[in-house]
Amino acid sequence: VPMNITRLADLAGTFVFAVEGALAAIDAGLDPVGVLVLAFFTALGGGIIRDVMIGATPPAAIRDPTYPVIVLAAAAVIWLLQPPEGTIPFWLLIALDAMGLGLFAVAGTEKSLDHGVHPLPAIFLGTVSGAGGGTIRDILLNQVPLLLHADIYALAGMAAAAVVVAGRRLRLPPRLLAVAAILVCCGLRLLAVAYDWQLPKHL
Amino acid sequence: VPMNITRLADLAGTFVFAVEGALAAIDAGLDPVGVLVLAFFTALGGGIIRDVMIGATPPAAIRDPTYPVIVLAAAAVIWLLQPPEGTIPFWLLIALDAMGLGLFAVAGTEKSLDHGVHPLPAIFLGTVSGAGGGTIRDILLNQVPLLLHADIYALAGMAAAAVVVAGRRLRLPPRLLAVAAILVCCGLRLLAVAYDWQLPKHL
Amino acid sequence: VPMNITRLADLAGTFVFAVEGALAAIDAGLDPVGVLVLAFFTALGGGIIRDVMIGATPPAAIRDPTYPVIVLAAAAVIWLLQPPEGTIPFWLLIALDAMGLGLFAVAGTEKSLDHGVHPLPAIFLGTVSGAGGGTIRDILLNQVPLLLHADIYALAGMAAAAVVVAGRRLRLPPRLLAVAAILVCCGLRLLAVAYDWQLPKHL
Repeated sequence: VPMNITRLADLAGTFVFAVEGALAAIDAGLDPVGVLVLAFFTALGGGIIRDVMIGATPPAAIRDPTYPVIVLAAAAVIWLLQPPEGTIPFWLLIALDAMGLGLFAVAGTEKSLDHGVHPLPAIFLGTVSGAGGGTIRDILLNQVPLLLHADIYALAGMAAAAVVVAGRRLRLPPRLLAVAAILVCCGLRLLAVAYDWQLPKHL
Repeated sequence: VPMNITRLADLAGTFVFAVEGALAAIDAGLDPVGVLVLAFFTALGGGIIRDVMIGATPPAAIRDPTYPVIVLAAAAVIWLLQPPEGTIPFWLLIALDAMGLGLFAVAGTEKSLDHGVHPLPAIFLGTVSGAGGGTIRDILLNQVPLLLHADIYALAGMAAAAVVVAGRRLRLPPRLLAVAAILVCCGLRLLAVAYDWQLPKHL
Repeated sequence: VPMNITRLADLAGTFVFAVEGALAAIDAGLDPVGVLVLAFFTALGGGIIRDVMIGATPPAAIRDPTYPVIVLAAAAVIWLLQPPEGTIPFWLLIALDAMGLGLFAVAGTEKSLDHGVHPLPAIFLGTVSGAGGGTIRDILLNQVPLLLHADIYALAGMAAAAVVVAGRRLRLPPRLLAVAAILVCCGLRLLAVAYDWQLPKHL
């Protein structure tokens, strides 16, 4: 059932991005409320933008208390653990972020297609869902967002969204499709970081 | 009548934040149109985000010309007075801002609950209503928003929102509730600035 | 027919701003996906904000694949041409931007009035439509947006919007009105840059 996959991917992505937002807040020296606020925007921002755009208001993140509860829990755990800087392996952070990007790209593309959005803008919306929360986080921290400059970042999100669009055309089973799209996203992003892949800046 | 309290708090918050946005624009050396634009976003940004999220479109700030008229008037007065830097007592600015935060947190929480939003996300939406305009102002001026780093800022907004949620459960009269919530918000924020209160950054 | 003028102005503005966003991305040293992403937000951001605010969701930019196709084409052409910095005449960039501002201010004001928005907020929404995409571009690139500090920028957008509002009252033909509004916008902005016009910062 595609709707279930959407919700599952959405909830998992919320958790992953809440953890990431909380870690970024602790790194930036914010107090516990700042940790909570940054975790909220990182985790829920992408889905809220997607739902507002497709007209599914109030957004799932507002309508369904499961979302804020997940964020509260993730932010509390990270704040209590308070991992000292440098403790968290670099690879774990990159992998968490790639996972969140893929999960939300899948959920965002599925939900957009379910709302009758055309495939091309659905890929755009899926990518925005995936990268939106992190972009709001970076804007709030006054940094140029990863979305624009990180190696194979937006592209990994678009690839996951494109896999969902193509797989739906081919009537592949939704769960298989979701797993494949997330693997493509994480694979592309992690290989890009590992081997310092960059797109050519000109022909 | 809760609806009246919501509107009254909304209009008062609009005036207070328009004054604040105009002062920030003059401080940043902007021309009169820049003053107007920054007053608009500071005053109307939080409410617009709230209304878009709860699906109350067009937002009150767009549908009802009272809002832009208030902003125009406040921006014009501040630009004509053109208070030289340092003339405005620091405390007046902090108090105005805390007042606006409280007024919008109350209006935002009331309106969200009236639209059937669950109490937990209603506290989130109330806080976003209160801090949203100032956050857009800070982002436009390319600064890290107060929302993230100011002492007891987001917390004061959340406290006002929580008072509204709790008071409604207890069926307290709406006007009393609004006054109490605004007092809690201003009290917390002003005491925090006065005594340099900060939340502990770790246990 | 006003609706046709709205759509035409919208599509032309999309093309102009996509070109501008792609050029800004290349200047900022972004890779081809960064070029595409920045072209998208610059070209579609203003219209999406407008449509979300007036409740016309999904926004035209999402519902109608013509918009993303225009952006894709413009970004691809600019990336393939890859004009070396300094090649593009300064005046061409200023003129393109003023044209996009005027086109979107006209389309945004027309569409807002068609959706029953009051004339005063319609001028605000028209200006936001015109300047919104460029503002998102500047925020993503971590710069203070032109909207706030460029000479006679927001004012040129407001003037175009005001011409549309006034001309509709006078029942002038929509096409004539659109052309007049765009001429007013471009004229004001280009003259301001040419003669270094600035609004007085105080009386």
